[in-house]
Amino acid sequence: MKATGLEFGVDWYPEQWDEGRWRHDVERMAGYGFTCVRLMEFAWTVVEPEPGRFDFSTFDRAIGLLAEAGLEAIVGTPTATPPHWLSDRPVFRTSPTGAAHSYGTRRNLCYNAPEYREASRRVVAAIAERYGGDGRVAGFQVDNEIGHEASDRCVCAHCRREWPRWLERRYGDVGRLNDAWGAAFWNTSYASFDQVPVAAIQPSTIQNPALVLDYDRFCSDSAVAFAREQTDALRAASSPGQWITTNLFPPPLSNAIDMEALTDGMDFASWDNYPVWGDQDEPLPWQFNATAQSYVRGLRGGVPFTVMEEMSGFQGHVCLGYLPPERRVALWAVQAVARGANRVVFFRWRTAPYGQEQLCYGLVDGDDEETERLRVVAETIRRAKAELSSLASVPVESPVCVAYSKDDARVLREQYLSKGLLMRVSPTVQAGYDKEAASWYAPFATLGVGADIRSVGSLDPDAYRVVSLPLYQMADPAVVDRLGRWVEAGGSLVLGYRAGARDLLDRNVEAPLPGLFAELAGVRVPRFESLNETSAALRVGAVPGRGGVWADVIEPDGAETVAVWTDRGKFYRGSPAVTVNRVGEGRVWYVGTSPSPIAMLALYRRILKAAGLRPRFAGADVEAVERRDADGKAWRLVLNHSPRRRRAYGATLEPWGWVKLPAD
Amino acid sequence: MKATGLEFGVDWYPEQWDEGRWRHDVERMAGYGFTCVRLMEFAWTVVEPEPGRFDFSTFDRAIGLLAEAGLEAIVGTPTATPPHWLSDRPVFRTSPTGAAHSYGTRRNLCYNAPEYREASRRVVAAIAERYGGDGRVAGFQVDNEIGHEASDRCVCAHCRREWPRWLERRYGDVGRLNDAWGAAFWNTSYASFDQVPVAAIQPSTIQNPALVLDYDRFCSDSAVAFAREQTDALRAASSPGQWITTNLFPPPLSNAIDMEALTDGMDFASWDNYPVWGDQDEPLPWQFNATAQSYVRGLRGGVPFTVMEEMSGFQGHVCLGYLPPERRVALWAVQAVARGANRVVFFRWRTAPYGQEQLCYGLVDGDDEETERLRVVAETIRRAKAELSSLASVPVESPVCVAYSKDDARVLREQYLSKGLLMRVSPTVQAGYDKEAASWYAPFATLGVGADIRSVGSLDPDAYRVVSLPLYQMADPAVVDRLGRWVEAGGSLVLGYRAGARDLLDRNVEAPLPGLFAELAGVRVPRFESLNETSAALRVGAVPGRGGVWADVIEPDGAETVAVWTDRGKFYRGSPAVTVNRVGEGRVWYVGTSPSPIAMLALYRRILKAAGLRPRFAGADVEAVERRDADGKAWRLVLNHSPRRRRAYGATLEPWGWVKLPAD
Amino acid sequence: MKATGLEFGVDWYPEQWDEGRWRHDVERMAGYGFTCVRLMEFAWTVVEPEPGRFDFSTFDRAIGLLAEAGLEAIVGTPTATPPHWLSDRPVFRTSPTGAAHSYGTRRNLCYNAPEYREASRRVVAAIAERYGGDGRVAGFQVDNEIGHEASDRCVCAHCRREWPRWLERRYGDVGRLNDAWGAAFWNTSYASFDQVPVAAIQPSTIQNPALVLDYDRFCSDSAVAFAREQTDALRAASSPGQWITTNLFPPPLSNAIDMEALTDGMDFASWDNYPVWGDQDEPLPWQFNATAQSYVRGLRGGVPFTVMEEMSGFQGHVCLGYLPPERRVALWAVQAVARGANRVVFFRWRTAPYGQEQLCYGLVDGDDEETERLRVVAETIRRAKAELSSLASVPVESPVCVAYSKDDARVLREQYLSKGLLMRVSPTVQAGYDKEAASWYAPFATLGVGADIRSVGSLDPDAYRVVSLPLYQMADPAVVDRLGRWVEAGGSLVLGYRAGARDLLDRNVEAPLPGLFAELAGVRVPRFESLNETSAALRVGAVPGRGGVWADVIEPDGAETVAVWTDRGKFYRGSPAVTVNRVGEGRVWYVGTSPSPIAMLALYRRILKAAGLRPRFAGADVEAVERRDADGKAWRLVLNHSPRRRRAYGATLEPWGWVKLPAD
Repeated sequence: MKATGLEFGVDWYPEQWDEGRWRHDVERMAGYGFTCVRLMEFAWTVVEPEPGRFDFSTFDRAIGLLAEAGLEAIVGTPTATPPHWLSDRPVFRTSPTGAAHSYGTRRNLCYNAPEYREASRRVVAAIAERYGGDGRVAGFQVDNEIGHEASDRCVCAHCRREWPRWLERRYGDVGRLNDAWGAAFWNTSYASFDQVPVAAIQPSTIQNPALVLDYDRFCSDSAVAFAREQTDALRAASSPGQWITTNLFPPPLSNAIDMEALTDGMDFASWDNYPVWGDQDEPLPWQFNATAQSYVRGLRGGVPFTVMEEMSGFQGHVCLGYLPPERRVALWAVQAVARGANRVVFFRWRTAPYGQEQLCYGLVDGDDEETERLRVVAETIRRAKAELSSLASVPVESPVCVAYSKDDARVLREQYLSKGLLMRVSPTVQAGYDKEAASWYAPFATLGVGADIRSVGSLDPDAYRVVSLPLYQMADPAVVDRLGRWVEAGGSLVLGYRAGARDLLDRNVEAPLPGLFAELAGVRVPRFESLNETSAALRVGAVPGRGGVWADVIEPDGAETVAVWTDRGKFYRGSPAVTVNRVGEGRVWYVGTSPSPIAMLALYRRILKAAGLRPRFAGADVEAVERRDADGKAWRLVLNHSPRRRRAYGATLEPWGWVKLPAD
Repeated sequence: MKATGLEFGVDWYPEQWDEGRWRHDVERMAGYGFTCVRLMEFAWTVVEPEPGRFDFSTFDRAIGLLAEAGLEAIVGTPTATPPHWLSDRPVFRTSPTGAAHSYGTRRNLCYNAPEYREASRRVVAAIAERYGGDGRVAGFQVDNEIGHEASDRCVCAHCRREWPRWLERRYGDVGRLNDAWGAAFWNTSYASFDQVPVAAIQPSTIQNPALVLDYDRFCSDSAVAFAREQTDALRAASSPGQWITTNLFPPPLSNAIDMEALTDGMDFASWDNYPVWGDQDEPLPWQFNATAQSYVRGLRGGVPFTVMEEMSGFQGHVCLGYLPPERRVALWAVQAVARGANRVVFFRWRTAPYGQEQLCYGLVDGDDEETERLRVVAETIRRAKAELSSLASVPVESPVCVAYSKDDARVLREQYLSKGLLMRVSPTVQAGYDKEAASWYAPFATLGVGADIRSVGSLDPDAYRVVSLPLYQMADPAVVDRLGRWVEAGGSLVLGYRAGARDLLDRNVEAPLPGLFAELAGVRVPRFESLNETSAALRVGAVPGRGGVWADVIEPDGAETVAVWTDRGKFYRGSPAVTVNRVGEGRVWYVGTSPSPIAMLALYRRILKAAGLRPRFAGADVEAVERRDADGKAWRLVLNHSPRRRRAYGATLEPWGWVKLPAD
Repeated sequence: MKATGLEFGVDWYPEQWDEGRWRHDVERMAGYGFTCVRLMEFAWTVVEPEPGRFDFSTFDRAIGLLAEAGLEAIVGTPTATPPHWLSDRPVFRTSPTGAAHSYGTRRNLCYNAPEYREASRRVVAAIAERYGGDGRVAGFQVDNEIGHEASDRCVCAHCRREWPRWLERRYGDVGRLNDAWGAAFWNTSYASFDQVPVAAIQPSTIQNPALVLDYDRFCSDSAVAFAREQTDALRAASSPGQWITTNLFPPPLSNAIDMEALTDGMDFASWDNYPVWGDQDEPLPWQFNATAQSYVRGLRGGVPFTVMEEMSGFQGHVCLGYLPPERRVALWAVQAVARGANRVVFFRWRTAPYGQEQLCYGLVDGDDEETERLRVVAETIRRAKAELSSLASVPVESPVCVAYSKDDARVLREQYLSKGLLMRVSPTVQAGYDKEAASWYAPFATLGVGADIRSVGSLDPDAYRVVSLPLYQMADPAVVDRLGRWVEAGGSLVLGYRAGARDLLDRNVEAPLPGLFAELAGVRVPRFESLNETSAALRVGAVPGRGGVWADVIEPDGAETVAVWTDRGKFYRGSPAVTVNRVGEGRVWYVGTSPSPIAMLALYRRILKAAGLRPRFAGADVEAVERRDADGKAWRLVLNHSPRRRRAYGATLEPWGWVKLPAD
């Protein structure tokens, strides 16, 4: 399996165009420097027009043309949109709101629907047979954006049937379930697994958070099993050089599906990078893109990943917003490489004239003229290949890490604690955990310190000098123990508010907060309030700032005060907001709020310096990433995320420009 | 059929009152100058207490009384509210949200429900038989506010059954549908028409915009067929002097139903005029009322129309808002006449004591005292009859026109492009197209230039000096061609952003934007952004202003710059925002944004002057309309839409006052 | 039945804890001064694990332990959460939105479900048999928070079946229903009761307000019958010393259920007091708490009531907010006593580790440490017992009263008239009536004048000097007559806007507004507007202020002007906003708006002084309540609802402190 160098590709949908245009398309792709093309992921009906009758002729011809032009194919399995012959079968999912999905859209299927699963197996088997071992096919993409558009959770009749079986496998007998969930509360015990309701959204009050958490795990397992079936079938038929991946969508932390489990057995993870989409009036801050890239990189142990859809320009389904200048679009692609991608596939070659994505513009439009966006992207490809190929496939090394907990993200979706942790995207999607996690990652990026993102389960603290651990309520004793030993040996642990507040059953711990972390942190937190969308004044050393989301009233028990509440309207004025505790050779920082950006920067700078690292602030718009090339030489990639010229690290950066410098 | 002069009427519901009060009511109506009375449109059960058993005695007596007092009756067919004997039949509609309607409200019926259609035919036949040719009945109103309260669209089982048949009639074979809709996108092709889903609102993502557009057309055709059946039955039985109409409600552009088709076969259009309703804290700007009046006037070729419900005072179902002073209410009635109505029927005689419209106040209240609003209305009727009768039935002549496209309004309802084009009225109604169209009409009104509103399909450009054409995405080549020849010969065409962006199948055009208009406009628009609810600075000549909703980055290709983007935060600062291209004897103005009111006024002034017209700004509150009387003499009606005295056109206007002056 | 002194208790859920912890819990409760413990209200499955098989052993042991420690038990009937053996039975309610409830939550049952009713009767009979006459059990709580979480209204199949029968009982024949509801409007008459739809929320337009009002009454009667069955069964089995109550939740005025009827047959009312809950960033103003306490006190004729759940600290289901300082929590408990409670039961002893109320903190946490909140509460209990026991069980005497109308509250829920009367809590709950009523109560509290709250039906005006009557649309002639005689004899009646606008069928009155009150008030109100969320300037005497919600344009007809509209933007500038009419020895104040707090205070001060009372303003944060002790001695309790020290009534009050002073 090829994992060296750097390549660029493009998404292409031959079935949407008159075949007379194919050759011209393909030759131009090659001419502009692309070397791979993703196709087929929305073409189930084309390849299987009737159940069990396969016709790969369209894609055979397309892949043939690509090969002639020196382009490799990435074959997507087409299971995100059902063929019409499933349109009247019971395969569509039901939203936890009770709303039923139907034919004509995408991601409208239930992973537990037997007829869908059977059809999925059949079509993937046929694809595996056809293209497994085909030298023209570089690899496979399993389905498309699994879990996106709220497809992580379903409460349909199939799920209703599978859910008790899942519970039975997990708990064995229903008494253990009653104990685990605390069914004594509100008299919600069960005499059989079949009595347990699915986690539909209730008209008033909520279901037991423990039920909701288990339902998320059940949904995740359903999706993972669905994907795994495809992965295994493709693996069995493919040659060693062919890789398998699946493309995620943002934001994935708050999704019910465990993306580590989903990509297990695959060669690397992929994702679809849209820093601005739909009606956004501003793109996401570049630090948030860096967070997402680092998250995807961390899913499969840090091996180089792929951006399977890199936005080209205007993007939206029903509404547009901010139009990024072409050089900004190109810079986002470079950022992906800087953060560990070694393959960037642009979405899409030519704008679709019709359908739900008429407003998702490609690199070229229907007139086939060279757009300014294509021109700039092609220029960037040339330069990136020249300057970045030597380092793109060398794994990123980071001295620090942000750790996340999938289960805590799941719990916080409905029991969000503070409106500051509520970012409602749709009735069943809320991305507050993602937003908060990103704001605990952002200061590392702003201070030019390379940072990984790992799940607490996969985290190896020994690989890092600093580990930042926000919103870790459901503390695992094994993790706490491991972190404790690592701190003892010199590590710096940054704990966020609510750390250790729950056990692995999501119960309030019986010990004083921060529970299992109390001794390590050297504090007690008997009182706290949710600040919701308000904030309260604090001071980090001499730096004034504000705390948002949450306010712990910390009582030091060995720890020193780092930041203090200064708000005149609060009874806890004068209490610490942030503390640090020296433990052995290391330090445990307890951060009892979500500091405002300036306060956060001041705090992280102090944390990093105390850990012997070298934070460097080169301007809020400047991103710097250290990388090694294949020869071990260290470089610093510096990106200017602003429309103005900047000087940083001794270099001058053009608007939306970037340079590669020897690391000092 | 009578079409001369000017008359005033009142809505009256005899079935709601003790018969002992009728004579007094009727005599007072006559005494106050009313000459017609609308009745019966919510009285199905009264006239048909059991299926097929008719009892017109109540209305016979009421109409008899009216005739005695010299009042003509307007008979409404009562099909907007079902009789109780349909309450348990499958006749109720289902909202695209999935919500089912039920008995007890209004507009709760599906036009495709067979039992409803059959009952509708039967009751209308009976009414036609009874009152067709009856000299006491001036005319008929078909149903009431068809399409209002989201009754334009239904996704019930009846529609589910009819929809494939409609598609079959339109496309013949399903392959043509697949081609037309671009079913290759997201794998949504069909093997049979029966597989095509109804356009229910989806829990996530949308249905193909082409499907939604066709579904709107299907719904429109359903409503039109329903109304046509009634029109034909009434026509067959009525005498030549009896007219037929139906009363529309605002806003109608964004409604799925084609109101030209709905009123086809009728003598004139009517509408219900509520410049302030429910919880509005301010009435609509008077220019918006002028837009609505002109729209209704244009539906049937400019013949004088009727206001079937002219508000009397407080109005709302569950909540009230701004209370208009009595003289302001009266001025709105005068405005209707100024804009082409020759019959104004006030809603309603006496306030209902009960029911859903307890808060919809009539001219008198339950105490039967003379209210101030009745006194002022009566005074206005006397004066209007004296001064305006000679011109009210002479068709309005306008030198300019705003053209709209029903299909574009339909498409923009869900695929609204910019939050600036989003004005959500209910889950299934959004009036952004109406709002934007009104703001392209408003400057004509403010500058005292008479303007028509016509659909692009019915537009005869030769009748106008200037045609303003906003939001015309789905450009018809025949229309473009016709407009081109007209411009060549001296016409002034004002194109809005997105002009020509789509073809008649709603596909993105393959040519550079503005597509078919590119040559005429002399521009290319390779880039644009949605401004949503933000705006960007621009300058129209020397006049600073702002552009909202949308920003085209125009590249002139022969055109001159008229307005330029000046916003420091935008990469397209310095690019044109508005251009003009001289074509033959005429001009094509391309307006790449929705200018703020001041900028719009500056722009339109320039456009009108260049076209040889005489824009006159007499104050933002002053409306001036030129009309001819039956002798061909030209007059100017000047209305003061302000609570303060104004001088304009040499006259002094009282607060909420009006004058009729010889036109200069 | 014990009704003397003052006692404090705590809510405790033995079934949620290992029995090994019970004795320690119970002994500590006793040690901290608690004397009663509520339990069992969410433990149906524990006491009836299978239908008809009862097992009270858990609670027998718990009650035994309590008795040993000198603690009395309060036994709650467990019917708010069904046992699992009802989980697959048709017992769950359907929200008026159409959303179905399911097992796993609370208050998810339909009062009309036969299987639920039968099971309720059986379990309550068993409890009555077991604990009726048991000297260790002080009394019973019927169910828990009946009507809370929108459980006041249901539109399920059972209700669909019962509703016509209820209508038949009310109207006898359907013609009378048609007359009463005004079914002539919109053609909504019925030929049989079975045709009448349930009051489900409609996708567009509303149902007839008269139907909605009757449906609320039907739902209320259903809940009342359900509760009454329990009350009667418990009464029959209990000893004279055992009392029966049920615990209400806020806000109850806008709830469909008539809480006077619900508590009829019980010994006193109870309620659950949470001045801050969930995501609130600030507690309710203390005046609003005083309103709620006085409302509950008034339900059963002013006898001392119980706070069955007094919040201990952090409280919320999915989100938290403001954390009250411990002394503030304790002050709220003292306020309850000041306002007439003689029993305060804290919610809850120990925080639940799991379930939907993990975030509802008790007095102690899982670590069983003495929290600061327990320490402060215990201190307050000691002091309150010492200082307040002598007066707590002496009924509160108040010189003034605010009267409310349940039917008006019901009508205003959907037909809310002004957005200022709209406070949407959930799709089916809106508490605008409560908010407005509280703002008509608040000035009495701020001015230190004791005030009752009574329904118009139970109001005895002779007991008061001033009666304030806001939002009394559906005026009862008997009430008006009685009030008239009382005014004549010296009473002061304060009427709010909309007084007398409707009759008892909710019809607009035929007389000029304020209808039946016109003569008493000496005004006519022919015009009004809804101010919604805007306001208009006015002046109360010399005090400038604003009117919100509504603006009557009053025409005095004998009354004097008290406040005048001064807003330049309003055509009614110069008209009275508030008037007073002298009638016999008394006065009728007509208040045609909802004055801003300052204007309201100025107005009430004037009203009170004119009535010979002594309003005293001691600061916006200072509450003063006059009470008599058992010996008839008058005291003034003064509470400081602020974090700062205050001087008032000659005393110095600590932050969140209180004193008991001899009344002057």
